[in-house]
Amino acid sequence: MSSIIYFDNAATTPLANEVLEVMLPFMKENFGNPSSSYSAGRTARLGVEVARKKVAQLLGVTPTTIFFTSGGTESNNTAIAAAVRDLGCTHIITSPIEHHAVLHTVEHYSHHNNITFSLVALTENGEVDYKDLEQQLQAQTQAGKKVLVSLMHANNEIGTLLEMSHVGKLCRQHNAIFHSDCVQTVGHYPLNLSEAGVHFISGAGHKFHGPKGVGLLYVSNEIKINPLLYGGGQERNMRAGTENTYGIVGFARALEMAMEAFEKESQYINQLKQYMKAKLTAAIPGVGFNSPDHSLYTVLSVCIPQSPKTDSLLLELDMAGICVSSGSACSTGEASHVMKALRKDNNSTTIRFSFSKFNTQGEIDVVVTKLKELLS
Amino acid sequence: MSSIIYFDNAATTPLANEVLEVMLPFMKENFGNPSSSYSAGRTARLGVEVARKKVAQLLGVTPTTIFFTSGGTESNNTAIAAAVRDLGCTHIITSPIEHHAVLHTVEHYSHHNNITFSLVALTENGEVDYKDLEQQLQAQTQAGKKVLVSLMHANNEIGTLLEMSHVGKLCRQHNAIFHSDCVQTVGHYPLNLSEAGVHFISGAGHKFHGPKGVGLLYVSNEIKINPLLYGGGQERNMRAGTENTYGIVGFARALEMAMEAFEKESQYINQLKQYMKAKLTAAIPGVGFNSPDHSLYTVLSVCIPQSPKTDSLLLELDMAGICVSSGSACSTGEASHVMKALRKDNNSTTIRFSFSKFNTQGEIDVVVTKLKELLS
Repeated sequence: MSSIIYFDNAATTPLANEVLEVMLPFMKENFGNPSSSYSAGRTARLGVEVARKKVAQLLGVTPTTIFFTSGGTESNNTAIAAAVRDLGCTHIITSPIEHHAVLHTVEHYSHHNNITFSLVALTENGEVDYKDLEQQLQAQTQAGKKVLVSLMHANNEIGTLLEMSHVGKLCRQHNAIFHSDCVQTVGHYPLNLSEAGVHFISGAGHKFHGPKGVGLLYVSNEIKINPLLYGGGQERNMRAGTENTYGIVGFARALEMAMEAFEKESQYINQLKQYMKAKLTAAIPGVGFNSPDHSLYTVLSVCIPQSPKTDSLLLELDMAGICVSSGSACSTGEASHVMKALRKDNNSTTIRFSFSKFNTQGEIDVVVTKLKELLS
Repeated sequence: MSSIIYFDNAATTPLANEVLEVMLPFMKENFGNPSSSYSAGRTARLGVEVARKKVAQLLGVTPTTIFFTSGGTESNNTAIAAAVRDLGCTHIITSPIEHHAVLHTVEHYSHHNNITFSLVALTENGEVDYKDLEQQLQAQTQAGKKVLVSLMHANNEIGTLLEMSHVGKLCRQHNAIFHSDCVQTVGHYPLNLSEAGVHFISGAGHKFHGPKGVGLLYVSNEIKINPLLYGGGQERNMRAGTENTYGIVGFARALEMAMEAFEKESQYINQLKQYMKAKLTAAIPGVGFNSPDHSLYTVLSVCIPQSPKTDSLLLELDMAGICVSSGSACSTGEASHVMKALRKDNNSTTIRFSFSKFNTQGEIDVVVTKLKELLS
């Protein structure tokens, strides 16, 4: 796949060689079941627990708050289910531009448990209207509701960012539970969870050059929840099922690498984003940007005036070996729920470019030239 | 880990090199998200769908019935939750020697949904008493209950086998839903699910030299259920979350290899089991066997008369580089729920030996000699 240009890193990222390297011993000789008490089991257990400690340190929390799951979706599902089932939440405040792993889960648990939910207002940019959030929190708690606030740290389609500490503070003031889907920011920003006022966060290894099939669930020490999956006593009775040892070890290594190189890599990727923005502005008349100025440095959501030439744009880019998406990976074809919620689905075609440390300015030049050619 | 003797293959198995080989391309160049519509996504999608087709063929069913999960535990949880939530089951019949992934899930869903459950009687051998099962099915359906029967195909501790087709027939006669935890038999027996009368089965890749972190859920075409995890539309809306592509590809390859070599390997492993049984009988006075004559060929559960020398037996075997377990991997220390249910927890120490194609008679000789030495 060396001939392609991969600008869809918000969908998934290539596994880093250094991550694969630490996974392989757990796929070969250290194959034991971490629940087994003999040597081969203990080696596997050690791998898992060293990984947990590393992840905890990198997120500024204790290892007892870190649980490994099968991915961001399972983590989001677990947090929301637990808030409703175990923590007594009776109203959920979320946003219309959350990932489906949050929105559909909220819908499910509200239908099945007579829980109500409401959507927070967004600014024109797609950012959370904090005044509205505060008013909703006030109204719901005054009505005797215990509230779960589930708001993503960075939006996966347009890159808007949440002021996590501010939301954490508002939630504390209203005795609300705060969950943040951090799938786009774990491994992309240094997070200090003990200072963020958050009760749950979700992360996914494959979004920052770690493995697929492994996720993170942070559960604050202040709360006590039950598992979503029942069975063996793995993950201190919090997540049953034989541990995906290589996935877990790879997750920790990927996070470690990302945080060690954060300053350099985030700057590099942000430069790519700004470079592309400038290039596109110069090359394509009428081009606009859905991502606000201060947004996730990995994502640039571009809006191109609709014309007969935009109809098959993604297809033509694909044929030129250029990988981009219209919204998220999950919504191909029609305008995504995010674009609809932001009323950006009319008279323009959205392309999401999302970058990683493996991308180059040269690739951007190729893509902008190709886009210009396709549109003129 | 070349110096150890690994006789705990029911806990987990070493990943086969041939399986790792097919996984690596999906960990390296074919890293795309299967939900993405461009080339890199389609390559990943193709990998997943070819794997699904292969697994379906090997199990005698159509690809639309095969769903990939994060493991056997998630599969068991999904089946039981769906039977209660979507299929209207109001009573569950299971057995006291099911894996905790079934027993604890049954307990959870019965507590939270006013569902009743009962345990089927077992013969002295630990096999299901089919007369009792039939009577319970009759009584419950006559009382107006819709029944879920959840019985494992092979017990993971003592290796007892279920007559799946017979149970399937009984369930059909009583309009009951039939789930079978096949974690110990997928990849160990040729299964023809379209003939077994079963509605759900669960499997786990790492039990037959496939990867950890990936499982199988078979859902008969006759029934329609909702997912356990909500989110993106992956697995035809049945299991949200970015697909663990390498896990899935590895699962299919491992199953394919296992079925291709079934005759030869099952015979070889069964010979190892019989050899060990004979050797132990000759070497250790008073030794007994918890596994009935006709049982899972990979598992030999041995019961050794209790003495001061048996107290630290597992520990001493471990120090000699011999990996075995007392029951399942999940129950170290005290007698397992299986042994307690079978009243085999008194006056004897249980050791489970479980074999794979990588084991040899030479290893058995070493282990039996060591055991004899430790006990004399």
